[in-house]
Amino acid sequence: MDIEELTRGIAAGERRALARGITLVESGRADHRARATELLEALRPLGRQALRIGLSGTPGVGKSTFIEAFGLMLTGQGLRVAVLAVDPSSARSGGSILGDKTRMEHLSRDPKAFIRPSPSQTHLGGVARRTREVINLCEAADFDVILIETVGVGQSETVVSEMSDLFVLLLAPAGGDELQGVKRGIMEMADLILVNKADGDLKPLAMRTCADYAGALRLLRKRAQDPEGFPKALTVSALEEAGLEKAWEEMQALIDWRRENGHWAARRADQACFWFASEVREGLLARLTREPVKGAMAALSERVGKGEMTAAAAARELLDGYLSGRG
Amino acid sequence: MDIEELTRGIAAGERRALARGITLVESGRADHRARATELLEALRPLGRQALRIGLSGTPGVGKSTFIEAFGLMLTGQGLRVAVLAVDPSSARSGGSILGDKTRMEHLSRDPKAFIRPSPSQTHLGGVARRTREVINLCEAADFDVILIETVGVGQSETVVSEMSDLFVLLLAPAGGDELQGVKRGIMEMADLILVNKADGDLKPLAMRTCADYAGALRLLRKRAQDPEGFPKALTVSALEEAGLEKAWEEMQALIDWRRENGHWAARRADQACFWFASEVREGLLARLTREPVKGAMAALSERVGKGEMTAAAAARELLDGYLSGRG
Repeated sequence: MDIEELTRGIAAGERRALARGITLVESGRADHRARATELLEALRPLGRQALRIGLSGTPGVGKSTFIEAFGLMLTGQGLRVAVLAVDPSSARSGGSILGDKTRMEHLSRDPKAFIRPSPSQTHLGGVARRTREVINLCEAADFDVILIETVGVGQSETVVSEMSDLFVLLLAPAGGDELQGVKRGIMEMADLILVNKADGDLKPLAMRTCADYAGALRLLRKRAQDPEGFPKALTVSALEEAGLEKAWEEMQALIDWRRENGHWAARRADQACFWFASEVREGLLARLTREPVKGAMAALSERVGKGEMTAAAAARELLDGYLSGRG
Repeated sequence: MDIEELTRGIAAGERRALARGITLVESGRADHRARATELLEALRPLGRQALRIGLSGTPGVGKSTFIEAFGLMLTGQGLRVAVLAVDPSSARSGGSILGDKTRMEHLSRDPKAFIRPSPSQTHLGGVARRTREVINLCEAADFDVILIETVGVGQSETVVSEMSDLFVLLLAPAGGDELQGVKRGIMEMADLILVNKADGDLKPLAMRTCADYAGALRLLRKRAQDPEGFPKALTVSALEEAGLEKAWEEMQALIDWRRENGHWAARRADQACFWFASEVREGLLARLTREPVKGAMAALSERVGKGEMTAAAAARELLDGYLSGRG
C-alpha cells in the first residue's frame, strides 16, 4: 500500500488503513521510518485534533474496567474513542497490558472504539515516540477522544502527561494514612483524581479517600492553566457505571476553560516543540548504533579499556572522523 | 603556558601546573577543550594510578571533619592525597561544599594534600566529566589517594561510584528504626560503611547503628568482586581520630584482593569504556547547541509549534541537512 492510498484510508477513518499506518510508524526499519514521516506529514494538513486523556493508576485499581465503562459511555454519546497504552515493560512481560483485549471485551468489539496495545520496546523513549505518532494517526482518522493508559513504571507517567491534554489519576479506596505509593510529582501532574470502587461496602471508604485526596490537592499550588476548583478529586464506580458522566463533564469543563484561555493551544505547541527536540536527540544518538560508526566506536572503546587512549581523545576521534556535521 | 610545559609540570607533581591543568579541563571553551584533550593524552603514557575513593554521607555526619582527619592520617604515612568534590548544586548555592577550605584547615595547608572544589556547573553530567578528567590529572601528578566527595544530591552517588575504585558511605549514629534516608541502591554501592561520631555519649549508639548496618549489609547479595566479609560496617571517630587506621586497612585489604583477582583492572576498564561512550554522546548532543544547528533548530521548532510541520519531518530535515555524518 502506498503512502497516498494509506493517507486517504486513514483520513476516511478506515480501521484497516489506521492499523497499517500504526504498524508502519512502529517499525524500526529505516525505510519504514522515512515512509512513516511522509505519512504523518501528509496527514498533518487535516488539522484534526482529539481530546488526549492520559490515565494512570496503581495496580489493582480496576483500570481496565474503568476504561471499558468510560469508553462505552463515550461511544454511547456518539464519540469515537481510541485506547493506547504506554508500557515500557511490555516486551519483558511478554505481552502488553492491553494485549489481552478480553479485559475490555465490550469496548474492543465496539465499532466506534479502537484499542491498540503498547509497542513492544523496552526503551521508554522508543515507546513514547511511537505512541505520540500513533496519537497523530488516530487524530487524523477522526477519533474524538484518545485514552493513553500507562502502567506507571518509572518515568512513564511523565511521558504520558507530556503527550496528553489532561491527566487523570485512578486510585483505589484506602485507609487514611495510606499513601498508595503516589509520588508528589504524580499528584502534581493530575488534573483529576478518580477514586474508583465507590460501590458496595467500599463506598464509605472511597468517599473518605476522595476527601483525603481533595485535601491533598488543595495543598498543592494552584496552576495558572487551571480554573477555580482544579485539580479535583471525585469518586466513581466503574463496576456500577456511576460517576462516569460527572467525571466526563469535569474533564470537558477543564478543557473548555483551557481552550478559551489559550492554555490548550499553548500546551500543544510546547509539547510539539518538546517532542521535536527529543526526536532530534534520539535521531542523533541513533547514529551511534549504525555502521560504520558502531564498529569504529567498538574498536575505540577497546583501546580505551586497555588504557591505550584516553576517553576524551577517543571520543574526539570518533566525533571528528565519523560524526562531524556538514553544516 | 603550552601543553608540553604543562605536561612536564604536572608529571613533576607541581601544584601550580596541576591547578592550571584543572582550570583547562574545567573550561567550557572549544579551544580549551581541544588543548585539554591533548594534555590528557600526553599524560596518559605515564600510566600512574591512584586509589580512587568515593565518599558520600548524609548532611551533618561530619564529612569535612572525617576527610580532614583521614587525609592527615594518610599524609602522615607519607601518602599524597587529593580531595575532589562532585556537587552539581554548587552553582546554585553560590559556592562549593569545599569552597570554604577553612572547613579542612589543616589538610588544606598540608603540602602533601591538594583540595579542589567542585566545578561550578548545574549539570551533573558536566561536573562528572570534569571531575573524571581532574582525577586523571591528579593521578599523573603522582597522588596516591584521591578522595571524591559527593553531597548526595540526586544521582551524584552513582556518578561518583562510577569513577571510584571503592565507595565509602559515612553515616551518623541513629536510632534503630531510623533509616537515615539511605536508599537501597546507595547501600548496594557501598564497599564500606563508616558510622562516625563513635565518641563520648554517642559511642554506644554508634556501635548499635554499626551493628544494624552490618546486619543490613549481610542481607544484600554478596558481590563477585568482593572477598569474604565485604561490604563491611565499622565505627570511627573523626573527632578523636579513632578507627581511621582500621578503616584504611580494610580499604587496602579490599583493594589488594580485587587487584589480585583481576577485578580492579576489569572495573577500571569498564569505567573507561563507560566514560568514553558517555563522552561521545555528550559531544554529539553538544552540536545542537552550536551554530548553525542551533539557529536552524530554533526556526524548525517554531514551525512545529505553529503546526506547520510534524516533529518527525522537522527532525529529519535538521538531521539530514545539518547533522548528517560524513561516514
